[in-house]
Amino acid sequence: MTVRPPAEIGMPLEEVETPALLVDLDVFEANLKRMANDAAAKGIKLRPHSKTHKSPVIALRQMALGAVGVCCQKVGEAEAMVLGGVPDVFISNEVVGRNKVARLAALARQARVAVCADDPAHVAALSEAAQSFSVELAVFVEVDVGAGRCGVAPGQPALDLARQVAAAPSLRFAGLQAYHGSAQHKRTIAERREMIQSAAAKVRECTDLLAAAGIACELVSGAGTGTYPLEIASGAWQELQAGSYIFMDADYARNLDEAGQPISDFEQSLFVYATVMSRPRPEMAIVDAGLKCFSVDSGLPVVADLPGVEYVGAADEHGKLAIADTAGGPRIGDKVRLIPGHCDPTVNLYDWFTGVRNGRVETLWPIAARGAVY
Amino acid sequence: MTVRPPAEIGMPLEEVETPALLVDLDVFEANLKRMANDAAAKGIKLRPHSKTHKSPVIALRQMALGAVGVCCQKVGEAEAMVLGGVPDVFISNEVVGRNKVARLAALARQARVAVCADDPAHVAALSEAAQSFSVELAVFVEVDVGAGRCGVAPGQPALDLARQVAAAPSLRFAGLQAYHGSAQHKRTIAERREMIQSAAAKVRECTDLLAAAGIACELVSGAGTGTYPLEIASGAWQELQAGSYIFMDADYARNLDEAGQPISDFEQSLFVYATVMSRPRPEMAIVDAGLKCFSVDSGLPVVADLPGVEYVGAADEHGKLAIADTAGGPRIGDKVRLIPGHCDPTVNLYDWFTGVRNGRVETLWPIAARGAVY
Repeated sequence: MTVRPPAEIGMPLEEVETPALLVDLDVFEANLKRMANDAAAKGIKLRPHSKTHKSPVIALRQMALGAVGVCCQKVGEAEAMVLGGVPDVFISNEVVGRNKVARLAALARQARVAVCADDPAHVAALSEAAQSFSVELAVFVEVDVGAGRCGVAPGQPALDLARQVAAAPSLRFAGLQAYHGSAQHKRTIAERREMIQSAAAKVRECTDLLAAAGIACELVSGAGTGTYPLEIASGAWQELQAGSYIFMDADYARNLDEAGQPISDFEQSLFVYATVMSRPRPEMAIVDAGLKCFSVDSGLPVVADLPGVEYVGAADEHGKLAIADTAGGPRIGDKVRLIPGHCDPTVNLYDWFTGVRNGRVETLWPIAARGAVY
Repeated sequence: MTVRPPAEIGMPLEEVETPALLVDLDVFEANLKRMANDAAAKGIKLRPHSKTHKSPVIALRQMALGAVGVCCQKVGEAEAMVLGGVPDVFISNEVVGRNKVARLAALARQARVAVCADDPAHVAALSEAAQSFSVELAVFVEVDVGAGRCGVAPGQPALDLARQVAAAPSLRFAGLQAYHGSAQHKRTIAERREMIQSAAAKVRECTDLLAAAGIACELVSGAGTGTYPLEIASGAWQELQAGSYIFMDADYARNLDEAGQPISDFEQSLFVYATVMSRPRPEMAIVDAGLKCFSVDSGLPVVADLPGVEYVGAADEHGKLAIADTAGGPRIGDKVRLIPGHCDPTVNLYDWFTGVRNGRVETLWPIAARGAVY
């Protein structure tokens, strides 16, 4: 059962059923253009991450502005993108399990498909499936450039695995996956710069070794919204994987620039629209959006439009707003826009983006890969 | 687009695609029976909360064991229950918004429907919609018995609102909603007992006032998995709303009994099944289940089957497992069962329950109200 949309096209914003996931289309489009222009100006490829939006509609908008394709994290996400018309998907992650690897190889008959490996076991499974489906899979060797998650160690282990990929039937060594996830949310530019400089040195260690071994490394792919200017500046990457820039969130808004001010390259376009359902006390309002409407891993949502009103507690279906001006504050039935703490897992809770411009619903985009975790 | 099931019926557990939401059917059925028997033995009604499972299949199983109906938190949840065959739904929450209240009244033409109010604005809107659809809505006055969320203050405010409900056309004053949410997860029995004794005193203050005013209070409804024996013992409630007992979670497992031991009335039946996708270092494994597969508001998931292995970090699509025995530990492709920190918002991330018995998939239950937040 798919949840019906919370709005009709043409409806005034105030009539949208809540909780709903709103996209401010003017801001969203400006964010898309800003990143596309940045990448084009610097001569670097842009392959935005679809784990943020999970919507082929948005992926195609990104490609219309020059993106070369999208990244995905899961086979199911890649399937949704390809079925939605995206011709080029890179699963920037390892894929494990006989059935999943078979689905990946099968998908390569419908679109350009790439994937990561960080272990000989991945290489063997991918090669077998690619042969079975008579396709060639592009395989990136994932290198741990500091995030401490997946990836081989830089240097010889990366070279060894690249050799295995290059030698495996029906696989093509496509380059290196080098994403420093934990650098994205470091607050100061100094911290982020140090981490990306360190990552760049690790990338160069690998590309130098590959070059010395006569193995062509077509592409190094990585970077996120929090650090991408640093990856560009380093010259070590040829492709950007940023995702969150299209929406932003309360956590990214806490990143600081050179001057110690919140970064302002991209503006908030994603909101959870909520209704005040109870006013039990003058200093408190209860809204209808709680833990099933936000991921709170990076903190509680932030109230967008009401100064002096703070979202201070989330339960399954309720949010508590603390109200500074106890003589005023919102009334039962009033609607408020809330900024999610973390955009990606918040989007994954919804079936529809409600696109709004000039106070009116202009579009409803299905979140086709919502819940596509396998 | 609805996500296809991660399994086929008859499949061995090990072949289930991951991440998947597993239900251990033997344990689940024992939990259902245990609560049904407890309620029957004490002569108290059981109206389990469907916000936990969001599945009419499970609701009907609960009713087959004696439950009088289900609670819901949202109109969309109630719609899914009624369409799935549940004849009696109580939205134990306030419903705000012209369209939502209209949907609620319309639903009362298909099933027994009750709802809460804590403000005259709710009463007026419900009465208007009920008249418009020519139905009678049962309305509970929600009283804040200590949770500090929705609800009128105990005493005169509750009486005043009950009078307004009783006087409103097409509404019936059905009783009191008295749920102490914040008591459910207090760790010691002493804390929980003190809070529920305090809540019971507030309930009695209301019921005494109502009786003195000649207003019949048919029913006081409330209680949750963490405290329900205390509500029963107090004699102040006539209906239980527990939900989590069917699945349990890592957070409830931290509640202690009289002897200071973890409570053991109900056992863990709900698991997220995950695959080890990377083994970058001997002391670490990466699984394919992260923030889109668990709500982490009540802590990280707990590894069920592997002693010495701990889930120590969640990213969007990855979980880090720390491995004590660096000479051993799981291999790439191995599958592990993880216990969610908080069951309700975790269930809301999935489209299917995969029911397992004796190591084999026995059933697939759609989570029909997944995402039904409005």
